[in-house]
Amino acid sequence: MCFLTGKMQRIPDVAIRRLPVYLRYLQQLQSYDVETVSSQQMGLDLNLNPAQIRKDLSIFGDFGVKGMGYRVSDLAGRLSSILGLNRDIPIVLVGVGNLGAALCRYNRYQQASTKIIGLFDGHPAKIGQVHGSLEVRPMDELADFIRANIVGMAIIAVPATAAQAVCDVLVASGVKAILNFAPVLLSVPENVRVQNSDVTGELQALAYYL
Amino acid sequence: MCFLTGKMQRIPDVAIRRLPVYLRYLQQLQSYDVETVSSQQMGLDLNLNPAQIRKDLSIFGDFGVKGMGYRVSDLAGRLSSILGLNRDIPIVLVGVGNLGAALCRYNRYQQASTKIIGLFDGHPAKIGQVHGSLEVRPMDELADFIRANIVGMAIIAVPATAAQAVCDVLVASGVKAILNFAPVLLSVPENVRVQNSDVTGELQALAYYL
Repeated sequence: MCFLTGKMQRIPDVAIRRLPVYLRYLQQLQSYDVETVSSQQMGLDLNLNPAQIRKDLSIFGDFGVKGMGYRVSDLAGRLSSILGLNRDIPIVLVGVGNLGAALCRYNRYQQASTKIIGLFDGHPAKIGQVHGSLEVRPMDELADFIRANIVGMAIIAVPATAAQAVCDVLVASGVKAILNFAPVLLSVPENVRVQNSDVTGELQALAYYL
Repeated sequence: MCFLTGKMQRIPDVAIRRLPVYLRYLQQLQSYDVETVSSQQMGLDLNLNPAQIRKDLSIFGDFGVKGMGYRVSDLAGRLSSILGLNRDIPIVLVGVGNLGAALCRYNRYQQASTKIIGLFDGHPAKIGQVHGSLEVRPMDELADFIRANIVGMAIIAVPATAAQAVCDVLVASGVKAILNFAPVLLSVPENVRVQNSDVTGELQALAYYL
């Protein structure tokens, strides 16, 4: 899949998925007060081809300065802006099992602008449990919460058998981007983006190569 | 990349990565005492093309019975065996920050045969901390631990700047499969397999599509 920029240039998904890698690297350089970085140095540190890096970044405009490289804070700011991370992005997390709780705990300490603001679970025993500063809410409040807080992104961490039903509620309430940890491929309309993630499955697939 | 079976048939990586999805689904059916399942039903439940499922499973032999489908426990057992999951697979986790601790906690409750048996961190303050039943060990014990326990798989959850050095120690000690959560592409010999995973990066890339 590809998306179009304002100039109608196609941006491949693989390039979009590298941008957070560049961004986090640049933010690390910022924390060390590094002011400029060349594509060669980025390539060495990130194990990527410098030409690939220059190509990726050129899609969004010509940021590099000949003989000096990229201004770190300038480039970090522009990548944040391109990804839409220069504002807080509220996220709902559905399924507060072990993985969901772990994600919630992880996210709470992150500097990232992607923030979990609502926890939901279908299991009555979990309603009211507190993770971080958030209380687990019942599923019948999910749609209203998404609409009231204009939530565009969701994390699904429910069992596979429940995932599609949860997905349908999310999509009907206005969610446009889903990170799915359930080991199932979700059916969504074309204007909704799903990224699948499955730690246990990744470990199990790796086992094949041992 | 592809690997070869005994019959020298190429098995694409994308097929290998679907096997854990099939396996987890079949294990769910087992827990409901379901005895047989058709590729049609699997396709519906997993949102996959039944022909794709039959093709994936036929790579490993002709398991289906005409008009009846697959025997659930038989197929689950054979998939486990193919993936090498019919034995415990010891894993070391390096980097017990928030993500590492979350992964450790998650893994502890899993039924999967992939088990974290050693935790390592380079930060002196973390040595001796207990997560689950495991104590965090210093990095200078990593190589000996891997060799003594014949560990073939590792999870890297350290910052990007430390990841390659950790990877080098793992590889030199005999690790053949790495799940990498650091936002950096690792350099490894051809006989070592790396799978990259980055939750924050995935959320940030998704933000682009909002």
